[in-house]
Amino acid sequence: MVKVSVIGATGYAGAELLSILLRHPQAQIAHITSESHTGKKISELYPHLRGLCDMTLESLAEIEKIGSDSEFIFIALPHGHAMDVGLKLEKFPVRIIDLGADYRFSDVSIYEAWYNVEHKHKNAQRVYGLAEIYRNEIREAKIIGNAGCFTTASILALAPLVKHHLIDSNSIIVDAASGVSGAGRGLKLGNHFPELYDNFKAYNVARHRHTPEIEQALKDLSGEETIINFTPHLVPMSRGILATCYASIKEKVSDDMIDAAFQKMYGAEKFIRLLGKNSYPETKFVRGSNFCDIGWHIDERTRRVIILSAIDNLVKGAAGQAVQNFNIAAGFYEGVALEVVPLYP
Amino acid sequence: MVKVSVIGATGYAGAELLSILLRHPQAQIAHITSESHTGKKISELYPHLRGLCDMTLESLAEIEKIGSDSEFIFIALPHGHAMDVGLKLEKFPVRIIDLGADYRFSDVSIYEAWYNVEHKHKNAQRVYGLAEIYRNEIREAKIIGNAGCFTTASILALAPLVKHHLIDSNSIIVDAASGVSGAGRGLKLGNHFPELYDNFKAYNVARHRHTPEIEQALKDLSGEETIINFTPHLVPMSRGILATCYASIKEKVSDDMIDAAFQKMYGAEKFIRLLGKNSYPETKFVRGSNFCDIGWHIDERTRRVIILSAIDNLVKGAAGQAVQNFNIAAGFYEGVALEVVPLYP
Amino acid sequence: MVKVSVIGATGYAGAELLSILLRHPQAQIAHITSESHTGKKISELYPHLRGLCDMTLESLAEIEKIGSDSEFIFIALPHGHAMDVGLKLEKFPVRIIDLGADYRFSDVSIYEAWYNVEHKHKNAQRVYGLAEIYRNEIREAKIIGNAGCFTTASILALAPLVKHHLIDSNSIIVDAASGVSGAGRGLKLGNHFPELYDNFKAYNVARHRHTPEIEQALKDLSGEETIINFTPHLVPMSRGILATCYASIKEKVSDDMIDAAFQKMYGAEKFIRLLGKNSYPETKFVRGSNFCDIGWHIDERTRRVIILSAIDNLVKGAAGQAVQNFNIAAGFYEGVALEVVPLYP
Amino acid sequence: MVKVSVIGATGYAGAELLSILLRHPQAQIAHITSESHTGKKISELYPHLRGLCDMTLESLAEIEKIGSDSEFIFIALPHGHAMDVGLKLEKFPVRIIDLGADYRFSDVSIYEAWYNVEHKHKNAQRVYGLAEIYRNEIREAKIIGNAGCFTTASILALAPLVKHHLIDSNSIIVDAASGVSGAGRGLKLGNHFPELYDNFKAYNVARHRHTPEIEQALKDLSGEETIINFTPHLVPMSRGILATCYASIKEKVSDDMIDAAFQKMYGAEKFIRLLGKNSYPETKFVRGSNFCDIGWHIDERTRRVIILSAIDNLVKGAAGQAVQNFNIAAGFYEGVALEVVPLYP
Repeated sequence: MVKVSVIGATGYAGAELLSILLRHPQAQIAHITSESHTGKKISELYPHLRGLCDMTLESLAEIEKIGSDSEFIFIALPHGHAMDVGLKLEKFPVRIIDLGADYRFSDVSIYEAWYNVEHKHKNAQRVYGLAEIYRNEIREAKIIGNAGCFTTASILALAPLVKHHLIDSNSIIVDAASGVSGAGRGLKLGNHFPELYDNFKAYNVARHRHTPEIEQALKDLSGEETIINFTPHLVPMSRGILATCYASIKEKVSDDMIDAAFQKMYGAEKFIRLLGKNSYPETKFVRGSNFCDIGWHIDERTRRVIILSAIDNLVKGAAGQAVQNFNIAAGFYEGVALEVVPLYP
Repeated sequence: MVKVSVIGATGYAGAELLSILLRHPQAQIAHITSESHTGKKISELYPHLRGLCDMTLESLAEIEKIGSDSEFIFIALPHGHAMDVGLKLEKFPVRIIDLGADYRFSDVSIYEAWYNVEHKHKNAQRVYGLAEIYRNEIREAKIIGNAGCFTTASILALAPLVKHHLIDSNSIIVDAASGVSGAGRGLKLGNHFPELYDNFKAYNVARHRHTPEIEQALKDLSGEETIINFTPHLVPMSRGILATCYASIKEKVSDDMIDAAFQKMYGAEKFIRLLGKNSYPETKFVRGSNFCDIGWHIDERTRRVIILSAIDNLVKGAAGQAVQNFNIAAGFYEGVALEVVPLYP
Repeated sequence: MVKVSVIGATGYAGAELLSILLRHPQAQIAHITSESHTGKKISELYPHLRGLCDMTLESLAEIEKIGSDSEFIFIALPHGHAMDVGLKLEKFPVRIIDLGADYRFSDVSIYEAWYNVEHKHKNAQRVYGLAEIYRNEIREAKIIGNAGCFTTASILALAPLVKHHLIDSNSIIVDAASGVSGAGRGLKLGNHFPELYDNFKAYNVARHRHTPEIEQALKDLSGEETIINFTPHLVPMSRGILATCYASIKEKVSDDMIDAAFQKMYGAEKFIRLLGKNSYPETKFVRGSNFCDIGWHIDERTRRVIILSAIDNLVKGAAGQAVQNFNIAAGFYEGVALEVVPLYP
Repeated sequence: MVKVSVIGATGYAGAELLSILLRHPQAQIAHITSESHTGKKISELYPHLRGLCDMTLESLAEIEKIGSDSEFIFIALPHGHAMDVGLKLEKFPVRIIDLGADYRFSDVSIYEAWYNVEHKHKNAQRVYGLAEIYRNEIREAKIIGNAGCFTTASILALAPLVKHHLIDSNSIIVDAASGVSGAGRGLKLGNHFPELYDNFKAYNVARHRHTPEIEQALKDLSGEETIINFTPHLVPMSRGILATCYASIKEKVSDDMIDAAFQKMYGAEKFIRLLGKNSYPETKFVRGSNFCDIGWHIDERTRRVIILSAIDNLVKGAAGQAVQNFNIAAGFYEGVALEVVPLYP
């Protein structure tokens, strides 16, 4: 049994993480924390956990003690806070999987420019936590910067075509839509039920922070500077992300070459389901699971490829991915606790 | 490994059953059938099962062969069809768990009166499949008539008070509401998305077929003839049932007596979570799980008790309960494959 | 043109009121107020009003000025605040329609007991604002205490049977469900989108403040003390209330007598649609309109009548009813600005 | 009073048309038809119309009689059927507003290629029914081919920039999402409530029939051949379309030039609300109304403009637009019956 702790357990990603860890036969949850609810039981805040996880929330003030009592620490805090934890635990043997943005960027200046905050832990030994692309690096990493939700869906959709240079990098547009759990549990008018129900809208156009994260991974794959458009939308539903990705196909690229690129990169992946050409992933088909379903279409009139990918934002887009990374880093079978059937309908 | 088959696998209850059986370490799915989709893969009809269950649907025409090749058969057919299967398999050692109504009634004439159909298998050796009440009978039964969805929520809410004679049996009113998956996958205008979205309605007032089923169980518990009002409503959501049950409290009955009745009957039950007095179960807190959450309130002004119970209609109200019954009947630990964390939010 | 003002225009009821008044050919909106948003345009807070109503929100501090500049004042403030306004405007000729609870009770002690606040304006000349029952009193009233949302649906469903003594008053149970706009625009976790979506729950069992309001009206109609059970539920939708009302029918009461009671009381009512026996009102069929649709059922086995009534909680349950009262009080045709087709689907 | 008839009144667009015409002071509904429900009252099929429109549905078999008894005919039939009506009424003075696709294309071969059907009324005197662009042509037209829902949102978003040559025509991508009423009232599994709830998906990628319709209008405006990508998505909500449109800005084009183009084209338009740069239209802010709300953003990194437009698919996207065209063609004030406040929340 590996002892793990969850720092910031009361957000949606934190709670999802607990759900997954509870069914993990090789993980033992040692500590869970929350600054705003220290001393309460997690099941008071999330009654669906009653009888399943009634642990008491501790405080970050004890982070060194928690760190020394854990082999892995999952951090699910707002950006800017994980690096404090990372710094304090630098000398401890504990390994860190951060679900936030602090450790996602290899070029810290990009982080600082998009997040408007100074990075305090620039020399951290870290790796980007998207298993299908960075698996080898994840195995030994001290700190894993778990990939974001929109970024996971977008990168996985585009990676094979970018890696094999089948599309024009600077033609990429990602138009994505997310269920509301992606916006977190914090109250705001835009996510108040009557405002959002029977409603659909875009937000953060041309300035969403997942943009540079997608660009970083695409550049890693192609070796080319890549600038994309990314537009997120909010769907009146709880869970799920669909990314609709557009790119111009290079000359002489055939359908078979596209199909081969997907097969080569993902054919052996446990959590990617390739639906093939002319198919339609739906968010509900992956709900509650760690799957990323991918389908693609060619528009011969415009010579663009349209790739569709669907994930559950809280699982493959956050907590599931974190446990997948944990399994890799801890040397377990990658699917432990993650091979669940999507909840449908 | 026990070989099981699912007759009628393409309805929502059938698909949920597959989801649960796929994670059952001691069950092996031998055959699945569908008359309207014979020859197709189940994952063509339910793409969320792609890669997880790609079995081919067979036909009922082969029921004897299926029966002789299975130790347990789950039937998820419309009422009136399971008794045909039951008759044909009478001489086989296979045991049957029927998710429909055909084997739920000990007095067949009640079934015939409410379902408008002649019963063809009146002398079947059968038991009502609600584990918390009929567990001992389930162990050895040849045929288990799995309890209905509304009935499960209603009976579990009322059983302790009826059994201990704390309420007036003929004062009982059950006002319940269900998500739309309870109405099945068959198309009809009332369940067409735009008609139901942002809408709420009652249906089958004073004539829903779950009424006599609730009455039968309450009578079994109290020994008294019991006539109740039952009113179902349709909620614009996918899953979940909340039953709001009203009854007049007998004189001199105290809160403690009510609490004791719940504790005594359910204190050791794995799938019932007693939230206690003045608490509020919510359907989402049990979503995807086999739990029944129960809370209760006293209105001192009218001397009525109001009991609230929440289940997932497709799990504890159908497929989960069926697997719970299967575990009991097969001699397994009752919670196998059923101890999942509810999917929230 | 009659000059009207809206005190507390930024809640959902206030905004709905503006929508209706904007299409009222004989009303001119003079002032709108908000304490938390004074100085802003209402269309900044409610962008659907852009170009239709860009008035600036004033402060209650100027209430005497507003009062002397208006013939009618609509108040849509939390309970406890309207009586301050009422007191201050006592000497002005302006008439008041309060959408809150302060002026709904003829016996002020009931208000004080259920709302936990001292009434400061006990001797106010007021009337209960439910037009179908108190129309004559409304014509001349100085202050109209507009009926609540659940109460409107409940009272209208029960009134004919109570008035004609066809049911046992003390057998009444009202089980009702409301869309989330009924809970207001104030942020709270329970109404955060991901918490409520795909979820259903009861709240305030045995203690909702609409209970004594329903009882008051039923007593007015029957002359008998009446104690009822009232249970509200929250439906994951924006608008609409369905009340499911249960009562024991007195001996020798026939279906025809019930039908006649409804016809006699509502046959000439513009905003009540009698659907008749065995019919099912749906909230969406009245969405955005001032209608109350009513259907009813008899359960011969229990000798109970089940009456179903549907309204839009923000229209007939709040702002529409207020304008209906305004039309009566101002001597206009009762349907002005209210004869709209429900928005379906 | 102008006599109008509605051919195909039982679809969602037909029913919405009735709702609008019922409040039109200068229109009298003469006939309504349905082939599948001839002889029934429309209010049996749409109970929200009870008491408001209880007209009996007639049959198309009487089209000449209906045509000679009407000054305007609205057709809301599936494509391929309106041209039969158009042919039969060619010699009658009646004017036609077709909500379907049959009369939308000036180049009939495009219609035939995308709709897979031979056009039978090629020489019809027709005009494209998008008032903001073709207003003058609409005034005198015999047949008006009312613009489609996605096309209305897309064309209005792009028209000013295309007309003033501020963007590269062949860089245009329209990524749009619609509520489910856009898919009609016909039953199909994909629109069955439990399948779509909490779900999001794309459909008809690279082959949706609204594509050439958008291209036709853009070409009319710019004079250049235009090929675009258009991708529709289905949102789990009833009503509303949001179009997210991408295009590369030409060199030296400034924000002011973009703003000026919108102002010049739409500054005086009654039903277009320009929200300006960096703003976010939401579908709910136009629900039930004839508005098209438009906002736009510049991504300086990619030099693309992103234009967002929101409409109610059944109003500005269908029935409202039809009545707007009717008002123009009949010589009425353009806003008659259409100046309603959006229904929010």
